[in-house]
Amino acid sequence: MPGPTPDSSRDVRPTLEAVAALAGVSRATASRVVNGGAGVRKPLVEQVRKAVDELGYVPNHAARTLVTRRNGAVAVIIDEPEFRIFSDPFFSQQIRGISRELSVYDAQLVLLLVEGSGDFDRVARYLAGGHVDGALAFSLHMDDELPSIIRRFRVPTVYGGRPGRPGAASEPALPYVDCDNRGGAAEAVRHLVSLGRRRIAHIAGPRDQTSALDRIDGYRDVLPEGDPALLAEGDFTVEGGARAMTQLLERHPDLDAVFAANDLMASGALRVLRERGRRVPKEVALVGFDDMVSIAEITEPPLTTVRQDVEGMGRLMVRMLMRRLNGEGEGDELESVITPTRLVHRASA
Amino acid sequence: MPGPTPDSSRDVRPTLEAVAALAGVSRATASRVVNGGAGVRKPLVEQVRKAVDELGYVPNHAARTLVTRRNGAVAVIIDEPEFRIFSDPFFSQQIRGISRELSVYDAQLVLLLVEGSGDFDRVARYLAGGHVDGALAFSLHMDDELPSIIRRFRVPTVYGGRPGRPGAASEPALPYVDCDNRGGAAEAVRHLVSLGRRRIAHIAGPRDQTSALDRIDGYRDVLPEGDPALLAEGDFTVEGGARAMTQLLERHPDLDAVFAANDLMASGALRVLRERGRRVPKEVALVGFDDMVSIAEITEPPLTTVRQDVEGMGRLMVRMLMRRLNGEGEGDELESVITPTRLVHRASA
Repeated sequence: MPGPTPDSSRDVRPTLEAVAALAGVSRATASRVVNGGAGVRKPLVEQVRKAVDELGYVPNHAARTLVTRRNGAVAVIIDEPEFRIFSDPFFSQQIRGISRELSVYDAQLVLLLVEGSGDFDRVARYLAGGHVDGALAFSLHMDDELPSIIRRFRVPTVYGGRPGRPGAASEPALPYVDCDNRGGAAEAVRHLVSLGRRRIAHIAGPRDQTSALDRIDGYRDVLPEGDPALLAEGDFTVEGGARAMTQLLERHPDLDAVFAANDLMASGALRVLRERGRRVPKEVALVGFDDMVSIAEITEPPLTTVRQDVEGMGRLMVRMLMRRLNGEGEGDELESVITPTRLVHRASA
Repeated sequence: MPGPTPDSSRDVRPTLEAVAALAGVSRATASRVVNGGAGVRKPLVEQVRKAVDELGYVPNHAARTLVTRRNGAVAVIIDEPEFRIFSDPFFSQQIRGISRELSVYDAQLVLLLVEGSGDFDRVARYLAGGHVDGALAFSLHMDDELPSIIRRFRVPTVYGGRPGRPGAASEPALPYVDCDNRGGAAEAVRHLVSLGRRRIAHIAGPRDQTSALDRIDGYRDVLPEGDPALLAEGDFTVEGGARAMTQLLERHPDLDAVFAANDLMASGALRVLRERGRRVPKEVALVGFDDMVSIAEITEPPLTTVRQDVEGMGRLMVRMLMRRLNGEGEGDELESVITPTRLVHRASA
C-alpha cells in the first residue's frame, strides 16, 4: 500500500513543541495536559487545549500506549469471507452483542474484514502494530493460523466457539465461549425419536469446525447404531443444506426426519422437501439449530430449532476480555464458558 | 475502558535490545532488520528474524509510522447503527467493493462500528490515535459531525455520497463518490409517465440525507406541478416504505404509480399494495432505486428499478483514497465523481 511521499511538506503534522509555543507554556506542561495529567493549573490546561484544537495536534500514539497501554479499541476477527459475514445472521447477532457490550466499556469495535484466510498476514501486521488492546476471534477452522498469530503477538483474546487445535501439550488452553453444541443436538434428536420417527437424518456442518463435530457427536449419542448414509455434510449455508437434503433423499427416500446443524441449512432442506412434494412435518419432521428468528419464524412451516443465545455469548466474550485487560487473571487462567441451549417448539417438528 | 496494571510484570513486552542480545548483533543491526532495511548481511537477517519470532517481539508502532507513515490500514465509517449495516444489502455491497479493492493494495479494512452518532467521540479518539492511513465514510446525515472530526485529525478521507454540509465558504469541498441520484430518479418517473400513469406518488428517503433530497428533485424535475400530498417520507427501510405506502393510499386512493427512493422501501410498499388487493403493475406501477438484486429479483412481481453500481462505487472510493495517499493531489483538489445510473426493466412497471 502506497504512503505519502516522506518529504511532502503539506503533510507535516504539528508537534507538541508547536502546541507549547502557541499556548505559551513549557513542553513538559503541554505534555502533561495532552496526557490528561493532573497538577496543571486550569487556565493553562485551557490554553493548551485551545492550541491543540487550533493546530489539529494529534498526540503521539505510541507514547500514550507506553504509559497506559490502552487504545480503547478491541478487534473482532471472523475467519469467514466478508460476504458470508453479511449474509449469515449468526454473525450479525454475535457482532450486535459485542458492539453493545463494548459500548458499555466505551471501547471502539474494530472489525477486521478478510477476503479469505490468505489475508491473515495482513491481520497479523495490524495486530502487531499494537492498534488494539485485545481481540475477539470466531468461526475458527481446524487449520486456522489465527491462534498462533495471536499468541505470537501476545494479544489478549477470547474465542467464540471452542478452537479446533488446543495446541501442543505445553501450551495452555485458549479461553472461549461456546454453547452446549453436543447437548443441544442430542435434545433435538431425542425430540424426533419421541415423535416416533425412526429414520432420522443429520445434515452436518463442515467437519473442520468444532461446532459441527460436536453436533454430530450429539446426534450419535442418541442414535449410536444409526446408518452412516443418513449423515450428509453441508457448509452452514442455505445452498449447502439444499444439496445435502437432495443427497439424503436419493440415498434414503424413506427418511422421516432431519436434524440440520443450523437454521440456514434447515431452510435449504425445507425448500428441497417442498419441491419434492414431501409434507413437513407430516411426512418429514425437521429441526434446526441456532434459532435465528429472522429465519426460523418466517419459514413455512416455522422451524422447530435448538436455541443458543448468540447475542448473549457475544456480550459474555467482551466481559471476559475486559476482565483479562483489567488484570483479573491471565488468558491462560481465564475459564472458558459453555452456555446452555433450549429446544424451541414450532410447527416443523 | 480498563487497562492492565502498569507494573504487571507478566505483561512486559520484549524489547529490541532483548532481540539484539539473543541474535548476537548490535541494536542498530536489529533495528535495521526489523524495519526491513537493506545493508544487513543475510545470515544476520535470519538470526534477528529468528530472535524476533522466539521472543514474540512487536516492533514499536510509532517509530515505524514516523518513518513510513503507513499503517497498511484504512477505516470504513458508516453513520448508521450496527443493526442497519447488517440488514440493508446496500451497505454489504459497498463494503464488498471496498474490501476487494483494498485487498488489491494489501491494505487492511478496519470497519469502525457505532451504535449511534453519540459514539463518534470514540471514533474520533481512534482516528486521532493514528491507527489508520485514511478513511472512507458513508451514509452521512446533514448534522453529521464526522467531516469536522476527520478534518480536525487530518485523516485523508473519501466520502460515499455527497456530504450534506459542504462547510463554510472558506473550507474546500470534500471529495466524494456518488451516483446520479437526480438523473436516475427523473428517468424512473419519466418511465411511469410514458406508461400513461397520471397520479404518480413518491416515497422519499429521510430528508437529512442528500441522496433522498436529490431523488426528490429528480421526481419534481418531471412533475413540477405534482400534488404535494403524493409525496411521503420513509426512512430507507422495509417498514418505513410500508408506512409511507399506507399514508399515500389513505390520502390518494386513486394513485396509479409509485416511485420509491430505494428497493427496501419499494418491497415494503409492495407488501401493503398486496394486502389492500391492489394489483401491481396493472392498477399500481412501482419503481424502486438501487437494484439490490437480493430484493429486486425476489419480489412478486420482480421490481423495475434504477440501477446504481454500488460495489463499483466502493472500489472507486478506494482508488481515489489511494491516489491521495500516494501524494497525487490533496483531498482538497481530488475531484469528486458522479457515476451514471440505468433503469432496469422488470415486471413491476
